Amino acid sequence: MAAEHGSILTLFTDFGMRDPYVGILKGVIAQVNPWLRVIDVTHEIPPQDVGAARFALMTSYRYFPPGTVHMAVVDPGVGSQRRAVAISFQPAPNQVPSFLVGPDNGLFSGVLDRTLVVAAVELTNCQYWRTPEPSSTFHGRDIFATVAAHLASGVSLEHLGAPIELDSLVSLPLPSYRVEPHGENDQYLIHGVIQAIDHFGNLITTIPAAAVNQAQWWLMLGLIEIASKPTYAAGRPQEVLALVGSHDWIEIAVNGGNAQQILGVGIGDPVSVQVKTLDS
Amino acid sequence: MAAEHGSILTLFTDFGMRDPYVGILKGVIAQVNPWLRVIDVTHEIPPQDVGAARFALMTSYRYFPPGTVHMAVVDPGVGSQRRAVAISFQPAPNQVPSFLVGPDNGLFSGVLDRTLVVAAVELTNCQYWRTPEPSSTFHGRDIFATVAAHLASGVSLEHLGAPIELDSLVSLPLPSYRVEPHGENDQYLIHGVIQAIDHFGNLITTIPAAAVNQAQWWLMLGLIEIASKPTYAAGRPQEVLALVGSHDWIEIAVNGGNAQQILGVGIGDPVSVQVKTLDS
Amino acid sequence: MAAEHGSILTLFTDFGMRDPYVGILKGVIAQVNPWLRVIDVTHEIPPQDVGAARFALMTSYRYFPPGTVHMAVVDPGVGSQRRAVAISFQPAPNQVPSFLVGPDNGLFSGVLDRTLVVAAVELTNCQYWRTPEPSSTFHGRDIFATVAAHLASGVSLEHLGAPIELDSLVSLPLPSYRVEPHGENDQYLIHGVIQAIDHFGNLITTIPAAAVNQAQWWLMLGLIEIASKPTYAAGRPQEVLALVGSHDWIEIAVNGGNAQQILGVGIGDPVSVQVKTLDS
Repeated sequence: MAAEHGSILTLFTDFGMRDPYVGILKGVIAQVNPWLRVIDVTHEIPPQDVGAARFALMTSYRYFPPGTVHMAVVDPGVGSQRRAVAISFQPAPNQVPSFLVGPDNGLFSGVLDRTLVVAAVELTNCQYWRTPEPSSTFHGRDIFATVAAHLASGVSLEHLGAPIELDSLVSLPLPSYRVEPHGENDQYLIHGVIQAIDHFGNLITTIPAAAVNQAQWWLMLGLIEIASKPTYAAGRPQEVLALVGSHDWIEIAVNGGNAQQILGVGIGDPVSVQVKTLDS
Repeated sequence: MAAEHGSILTLFTDFGMRDPYVGILKGVIAQVNPWLRVIDVTHEIPPQDVGAARFALMTSYRYFPPGTVHMAVVDPGVGSQRRAVAISFQPAPNQVPSFLVGPDNGLFSGVLDRTLVVAAVELTNCQYWRTPEPSSTFHGRDIFATVAAHLASGVSLEHLGAPIELDSLVSLPLPSYRVEPHGENDQYLIHGVIQAIDHFGNLITTIPAAAVNQAQWWLMLGLIEIASKPTYAAGRPQEVLALVGSHDWIEIAVNGGNAQQILGVGIGDPVSVQVKTLDS
Repeated sequence: MAAEHGSILTLFTDFGMRDPYVGILKGVIAQVNPWLRVIDVTHEIPPQDVGAARFALMTSYRYFPPGTVHMAVVDPGVGSQRRAVAISFQPAPNQVPSFLVGPDNGLFSGVLDRTLVVAAVELTNCQYWRTPEPSSTFHGRDIFATVAAHLASGVSLEHLGAPIELDSLVSLPLPSYRVEPHGENDQYLIHGVIQAIDHFGNLITTIPAAAVNQAQWWLMLGLIEIASKPTYAAGRPQEVLALVGSHDWIEIAVNGGNAQQILGVGIGDPVSVQVKTLDS
């Protein structure tokens, strides 16, 4: 890849598509390096929802080439004392590092928990900002976009600012799950919650596919028992079903329909999965 | 065009812009060939609405350069027995072929009915997939994106899998229109339906502009008579009018307003056009 | 920058993201020059809202590299006698000119009022159109996209059509503000209106930051007094506050919330700012 073209730069924001904010980010990036290939991952994160941004980052970073710079700006504390940071991490063992750029408010937690973090800096070197006097309300434009563009163009992480301790990065704990024995014959129960709901109305739980590997299982949503199926289309039309989703978590879906609308549940609602091992 | 840059790759999906699914497709494409120029045509096709996807493809393929790869994923049958296919076709006579990649569920019908289809294969060669063990819920990521990226990068269609008979491709019949004589003096009636409603609320019928060529005409929506005009602005403010739309079908619009909201009609509703030839 | 790659081409439209219209523009642009780097600024301008398009252009042009071609199509008068134009202007003094392409209906007013306009032409040379017989409803596709692509590829403005007088360009006056003395001690009042509301629900007034420079101030919305703060996060959670926004206008926001929803106000509603100079 020719050096002047640099790495891929992805964008994760809550800016929406209606205002010119996203276009302004891209203009600012183009002023640094017009050849960068910018990929919009999403700009429809609910306003100021740091947890939703964490989910989007955590579930997509692994699909980008090593060396990619991920810029994420969901930043309710903009202009306050929260730090602006850049972080290098190995998306998979022994890979060339990729990078994270954004506010240090926990939105990178999901990625940091799953990867080998290499180094982190606070963005104190205003030479890489758009202006030494940034707006107090739009650091995406005045700090993060130009820093990310320089990083994707080959500037070293350590030039961007002062190193910081990795364990000082803000952590936003992920919702999890727990397993308990249940009844006889090696049956067990897995308790989790709904952690995300996608555009199709699929309800994505915190229960990983690995927890039900090679076993018979069904899902309990309150008193409703939901059978597991291998695919959406394996259910009858409009049937509510549970399956392993593309993120490798158990999800609840409706064949040809919208599970959120039909079931009326929300993020944080509890679910459990009942598992019967194959030889029991 | 330098070979390593490949062809243009367009995307048509029902994934929406809120989740990272579209970004993930682009990450996967970039892992195959970071130089491909990817154009989002739409990701806002109503979930699982194969007919709407067919309309979007049918009305836009002709505006892209020959050689373009169009990837379309509206895929309610993902993981079931429905085939995954790639198809080559001539967008216009004697042109270099363009390509279609996606599920064989009828979404390509509109393009196939209007063009010369050259060849089709079932995507059986997992060497061009992202993984030989694809998710049962996201073939867009695990099969179609990488296949489309390889195709746009110069891999031959026949390498992607086993050839299939063109007449075995699933056909999703298009809504049509019919003409009947009406009254005296060579007047005639054309009966059609509303086949699509756009973002502006314009109601796009199945009646082609060619059917009213060089004639006086007006449109009947139930008992309402709607006059034809050359442009939106030729009507009075907020006037309901009929005109030849940019897709070359008769459409119903409101000058400065939204015809769908004002008329309260929907896709599939019948309309008729009454035509008086110029010399009658 | 290699000549064959041309300038950046930005898009501002009210086409929405649901229909293939934006994709069609990009296909048409790629037929002229597949190497152009196209940036979507927004396609979610409210249908036919020329004033909103003017605001989006006025607040974003300065963030793009000199030489950028901005194509804006919010065009309720398409097909009527309104002119199609291209304009060159200096985004900042002594810079290489950037360009505007679109209908002459006032949507460029905000840019023209803030910059040095160099020249303007009416797009009469159909050699640079997609077709000499353009659709009467989609000049974006048949005229503006190809003209903008040629301009971004290096064609001279004067080749695109007949020169027009700069003062004949349609002007859509901007909402403004006025200052009056108020009480004693050099206090004064600034009267303005809400000129835009963004995706976060922030209410952007017409009162420029410069008008309150270095002074104590607070904002009056009807009878409600709203304190000024340096940042969103400087307010208590859910507090309504006034601050200098990223566009350098006074705006009303809610810390962690949506001011539009909480206050229920709209575009055009009056606001005033009460200012006490620091030495009074």
